[in-house]
Amino acid sequence: MSTATGPRRGRGRPADPDIEQRVVTAAIEVYAEAGWAGFTLDAIAARSGVGKAAIYRRWESKLDILRAAWRAASVGFVRVPDTGDLRSDLVLVARTLMERLDEPVGIAEVRVLLDVKLFPEEFADFDHWRAASRAVARETVDRAVAHGDLPAGTRPEFVFDLVSGAAVHNFLMVPPGMADAWRARRAQFAEEIVDLVLAGLRAQGTAITAS
Amino acid sequence: MSTATGPRRGRGRPADPDIEQRVVTAAIEVYAEAGWAGFTLDAIAARSGVGKAAIYRRWESKLDILRAAWRAASVGFVRVPDTGDLRSDLVLVARTLMERLDEPVGIAEVRVLLDVKLFPEEFADFDHWRAASRAVARETVDRAVAHGDLPAGTRPEFVFDLVSGAAVHNFLMVPPGMADAWRARRAQFAEEIVDLVLAGLRAQGTAITAS
Repeated sequence: MSTATGPRRGRGRPADPDIEQRVVTAAIEVYAEAGWAGFTLDAIAARSGVGKAAIYRRWESKLDILRAAWRAASVGFVRVPDTGDLRSDLVLVARTLMERLDEPVGIAEVRVLLDVKLFPEEFADFDHWRAASRAVARETVDRAVAHGDLPAGTRPEFVFDLVSGAAVHNFLMVPPGMADAWRARRAQFAEEIVDLVLAGLRAQGTAITAS
Repeated sequence: MSTATGPRRGRGRPADPDIEQRVVTAAIEVYAEAGWAGFTLDAIAARSGVGKAAIYRRWESKLDILRAAWRAASVGFVRVPDTGDLRSDLVLVARTLMERLDEPVGIAEVRVLLDVKLFPEEFADFDHWRAASRAVARETVDRAVAHGDLPAGTRPEFVFDLVSGAAVHNFLMVPPGMADAWRARRAQFAEEIVDLVLAGLRAQGTAITAS
């Protein structure tokens, strides 16, 4: 259906918004499977069913395609919610992370973290959301400290290394063929991880206060 | 230097053990950068400086090369030492893991864990050492429980998700340009991670015992 009020794109066939969606979806899948080293225009064209010429009319480079795909998938680390309860916030972080890892977008996130190290120039843009994610972690932990939910001096990065790291490792260690059993249990794993981390932080905080 | 007592390899040039070493070293580097999707014979030949024909005389397939490289690099998860002290064992696990992640072999390990999920048939072999690693984790935790160092019922996979997962996440989140600062601190991070996990496990164990 054409939109009479939409902007004109000059003569020729109307722009097909579906094409952009197909390309960015395919781009995340190709990148999840192959990383930057295997992120070729041929692979993206084959996966999306969109011709290379049509892709190059929309994006100037492979990196532009990956950036667009990244934005479209709302990739970046899991945003930390503010449920008003630290435990609920962190459980949601771990659970959402596990759910994402089970999709191409989550695998793509892990690959980006590796590729940032291997191709620092190409992936310089991709480091901004990591910095943003660290800022959100800091806000979450500072809020919890202010509310007395965590000992003063708790390092935000430390909390997220433990919570997010355990979630990632838990996923990575699922044996092939056990994916369904893991899906049925992952919400519980998320709670167990967060409860352990909070118990540890509070035990250490108490020990420090008591000493 | 030829070994008069070694097995004969028939006529022709003597086998050059250096060639095998160069190929497996190059193979780990190529795989670390590119994963399975970019693990091409051309890339391995270019990186190692060994001709494709010479490579194919030694290995039947790309997968054989990767398997040989894997064995040569003693890859597989970090072996758990038995220092007689649970904390020391776990600190050594976390520290060794961080040191390996800083090398191509450690990046290759993370890529294998992703590729096992994406290419389960090709990577079926690579799952054996994960099972072996889980068995060692179980032995370590069972020993600690027997010695009274951990509460009964502690799940070995849970301990390793937290310790190894936090070590991996800590590494992955190092900003570009901060690698040296991270190297100077990683031994301390390893201790902080293990102390938090043990404090959490013991606090939960005490709470369960007391209830």
